[in-house]
Amino acid sequence: MSAGTAETGWLAVVGTGPGPDRWLTPETAALVAAATDLVGYGPYVARVGGAHHRRHGSDNREELARAAHALDLAASGARVVVVSGGDPGIFGMAAAIWEATERAAHDRWHGVAIHIAPAVSAIQAVAAAAGAPLGNDFCVISLSDNLKPWSLIAQRVEAAGLGDFAVAFYNPISRARPWQLGQAMQILAAHRTPHTPVVVGTAIGRGDQQLTLTDMSAFSPDQADMRTLVIVGNSTTRQLAAPDGRQRVYTPRCHPADF
Amino acid sequence: MSAGTAETGWLAVVGTGPGPDRWLTPETAALVAAATDLVGYGPYVARVGGAHHRRHGSDNREELARAAHALDLAASGARVVVVSGGDPGIFGMAAAIWEATERAAHDRWHGVAIHIAPAVSAIQAVAAAAGAPLGNDFCVISLSDNLKPWSLIAQRVEAAGLGDFAVAFYNPISRARPWQLGQAMQILAAHRTPHTPVVVGTAIGRGDQQLTLTDMSAFSPDQADMRTLVIVGNSTTRQLAAPDGRQRVYTPRCHPADF
Repeated sequence: MSAGTAETGWLAVVGTGPGPDRWLTPETAALVAAATDLVGYGPYVARVGGAHHRRHGSDNREELARAAHALDLAASGARVVVVSGGDPGIFGMAAAIWEATERAAHDRWHGVAIHIAPAVSAIQAVAAAAGAPLGNDFCVISLSDNLKPWSLIAQRVEAAGLGDFAVAFYNPISRARPWQLGQAMQILAAHRTPHTPVVVGTAIGRGDQQLTLTDMSAFSPDQADMRTLVIVGNSTTRQLAAPDGRQRVYTPRCHPADF
Repeated sequence: MSAGTAETGWLAVVGTGPGPDRWLTPETAALVAAATDLVGYGPYVARVGGAHHRRHGSDNREELARAAHALDLAASGARVVVVSGGDPGIFGMAAAIWEATERAAHDRWHGVAIHIAPAVSAIQAVAAAAGAPLGNDFCVISLSDNLKPWSLIAQRVEAAGLGDFAVAFYNPISRARPWQLGQAMQILAAHRTPHTPVVVGTAIGRGDQQLTLTDMSAFSPDQADMRTLVIVGNSTTRQLAAPDGRQRVYTPRCHPADF
């Protein structure tokens, strides 16, 4: 992106991808290299930060305060990169930046150029590791009811069932939200056979990654934790033994009538 | 990935991202550099190919034949990269590879290691350029009825409306499929106000990219072509004037009751 004026720096919102450097785009690397300040959840900032960066790590729940702080820094002339995990546009910091500008509408942010850089999301990393479970139409649903009511989440899971979508569940479970994943699976179970494939991907791309291929009848919520993404297939999703001997899960591009 | 044996090469399925090199991951660049053979739609192969590659370009509709050819090459000892645009797991070549292995189950492919590399999709590039329209739960639907019946697509669009999902439409329109986009928008219109934001992103990331922010009442299918991705907001999606003076569209992380 082009630099701002002397008075107004710029702000870029980037994503590290789901973990390793091999998924971090050249655009994001260039923005980080050009930045004076990095803002974000501490571990993300630590992952990409260099010696020349001022680092502004924070807790993972303070998105709006973090966004306002980043805008303040950019308005004071800094070149600011806000670091998300995964893709900043998918349950990342991009929406929080726009929320902050709309809520506060501070004149002091006027003129700050804002750029969002797309990145590889955990959805894609888990899908790639598993085979191609999202090879046809799909939904992405966060099961966190911190920012939206459970009734709306349940309505969306029901709609995903009605539409025979493959479904990726973000934020499936945490200590404070222990029952949501089980309930979501129960809602889906009314629309799927017990043999519908389920992919459980935890920390995919990291050293301690864990990938489990199972089905709806055998799946248990205690297979997931905060770093897990769960993908449930649609009615055509299948598991196969690949030529390399590994099991994979994929959703055909074709409707079964055409298969 | 690790190399195969002398007799059995390997096959990797990669994506170029939606266009420019700045979105091509280091993993994908490394796989392409290590490959002896590139297989895929001609323009994608041309985009990443080097002097040392044997290139096997093909028409964009021959996915299964292309997949079988790639597996044959790998089984004969080649290091084969199958090149998709965008993310290979999202309406890309990954599902076609698994379909080919399952349909044919040729013994001669036994032992070929297969690796899928995640990549930035057009969905994410368009969302980033527009603001953050996919900042909350969303669906991805291909409007191409080449491989699935229109009745199933219509059912999914209806479900996306019922679930109040933001929706990304892939393959929205072509000369052979002129009416599907208009009909999909009509189905959604029963569940949304006329002021629901619509993002029309064509060739985002390329030199001739075009981004239009409009709404359901003003949108017309002739704003889209084969290289377009259309994103329709949910009931909370809004357009705002950003601090840099540009209009953006985003979907808040919060439900309006909490906003």
